[in-house]
Amino acid sequence: MRALVFNKNLKYVDDYQDPVPVKGEALIRITHAGICNTDLEITKGYMGFQGIPGHEFVGIVEKCERKSLIGRRVVGEININCSSCYECLNNLGNHCPDRSVLGILNKDGVFAEYATLPVNNLHTLPDEVSDEEAVFVEPLAAAFEILDQVTINASHKVCVLGDGKMGILVGQVLSTTGCDLLVSGHHSEKLSILDEMDIKTTRRGMLSNSNFDIVVDCTGSKTGIETAINIVKPRGTVVVKTTVAKKGHIDLNKIVVNEITLIGSRCGPFPAAIKAIKARSVDLSPLISRTFPLEDGVRAFQYAAGKDSLKVVIDI
Amino acid sequence: MRALVFNKNLKYVDDYQDPVPVKGEALIRITHAGICNTDLEITKGYMGFQGIPGHEFVGIVEKCERKSLIGRRVVGEININCSSCYECLNNLGNHCPDRSVLGILNKDGVFAEYATLPVNNLHTLPDEVSDEEAVFVEPLAAAFEILDQVTINASHKVCVLGDGKMGILVGQVLSTTGCDLLVSGHHSEKLSILDEMDIKTTRRGMLSNSNFDIVVDCTGSKTGIETAINIVKPRGTVVVKTTVAKKGHIDLNKIVVNEITLIGSRCGPFPAAIKAIKARSVDLSPLISRTFPLEDGVRAFQYAAGKDSLKVVIDI
Repeated sequence: MRALVFNKNLKYVDDYQDPVPVKGEALIRITHAGICNTDLEITKGYMGFQGIPGHEFVGIVEKCERKSLIGRRVVGEININCSSCYECLNNLGNHCPDRSVLGILNKDGVFAEYATLPVNNLHTLPDEVSDEEAVFVEPLAAAFEILDQVTINASHKVCVLGDGKMGILVGQVLSTTGCDLLVSGHHSEKLSILDEMDIKTTRRGMLSNSNFDIVVDCTGSKTGIETAINIVKPRGTVVVKTTVAKKGHIDLNKIVVNEITLIGSRCGPFPAAIKAIKARSVDLSPLISRTFPLEDGVRAFQYAAGKDSLKVVIDI
Repeated sequence: MRALVFNKNLKYVDDYQDPVPVKGEALIRITHAGICNTDLEITKGYMGFQGIPGHEFVGIVEKCERKSLIGRRVVGEININCSSCYECLNNLGNHCPDRSVLGILNKDGVFAEYATLPVNNLHTLPDEVSDEEAVFVEPLAAAFEILDQVTINASHKVCVLGDGKMGILVGQVLSTTGCDLLVSGHHSEKLSILDEMDIKTTRRGMLSNSNFDIVVDCTGSKTGIETAINIVKPRGTVVVKTTVAKKGHIDLNKIVVNEITLIGSRCGPFPAAIKAIKARSVDLSPLISRTFPLEDGVRAFQYAAGKDSLKVVIDI
């Protein structure tokens, strides 16, 4: 099959072996896939991954023991767990210590004609969700994860740091809570997407001495956490979405003296994301920078790595 | 009056000017005071403090507008706030940005014959609490702060890192919750205090691959946080009691990927601490290493800095 393959370098091939679903898995024909920052990090060596990257997708089920799924349009959760360990038996399957992760850890991903995933990972899509929107379900679910972890409502003053894809998604999701929201970033063009949605924005440098109840770090930079700790109020909460290659410095004294709560946040609930797209409570169209065919995948990655790009979609 | 004074060096003097209470303050004759690690850090330059250190005390009120307090034996909360800012009006007086802190920040402390504190900071003591026990009210309250911040009950597997004064106090407080508790440290003699209370202990090196729901870092070392992050389970909670002079490295990726919650924890509720001492649900007597008269205060500090000592009490 046609695929993008990473092994020291990223390249396009047209003779990759078709995946064969194991028991419990479905074979999915991928129609569209999104390039995520994690994919870009993988091409720099993150996780030591080799194989087909990619984990944001929409596709059609072609083979599957659950016959009702065949021919259905689906998205899929990316953590493939053992379903029998302590974490799996306690509703923490995303934290299974023996998990593989689609296109990230020990499992070929979705920049290819076909991929396999356990049936239990799949979510069918309503017609109201377009293919282009569907590739956002995974990162949008990660944004909704914050609302599963922290109570946010109209009484809270909240700041989102970062105007990349995740920052803009998190900004939109948090604005649905009615909180007093400010999104801070460096790029006027990206911030203008939120401006047009009547979400308050500011340039990073303008954030001084603000007592936020909750700050969400979506900067993707190791200095984001320091800014967050400096602008959150005593007893406030910092949600960390950023994963960085290097260990960062943290002013632990400030965390202790100000009794700050720091919460790491990763994958989230797919149903909430699908529901929000269907209900039009988020607008994803301004987030798509460009679409490339799979054959131009290497160029798509180069384009996605540019400072000004947002979501790059691969049309398989 | 007689006092210990820090100004580049710690020295004992017998001609320090008596403090004069301002409006709303009481004049307290100090009878006993405890040496805390923060006091030792102050003699190394922490907070740039100059004056009389010391913030753990018991004393008798000698002057006060509230006449009913005169002659009463009291302990006192150490944060002196403005009582009118946002934090003060929202029950966060300990986080008042304009606060002074007894013996730590812009306010002479208690290694002296007299000190002053706002009447609202004082708590009278029941007869069942001895003077020696009363000097533990402040650090014991800091241990109880954890229970105000995190739900801990019999269903939780909890590890306390550190067998210093704070570790032993936190161990005793958390054991009252019925949780599955383990206290980890380096010093057999200190851990044996907890062994005799039927609290499980272990030597630091024995902690590998343990999935704790909650880990409390009382190590006073900047590497404690790393250990805590490594032994807490996914979605678990790390409470940080340690304040360290230098910024520490933290593996933020692990916090994000494992969705760990990190909570800074400082001063706590005095009433809970006084009640616990009165009810004998904690045993403080094994924690007192030695008592020195105020005149021998410099020697008392040297003794307190020794690896094997626990609480050193100054008999004023």
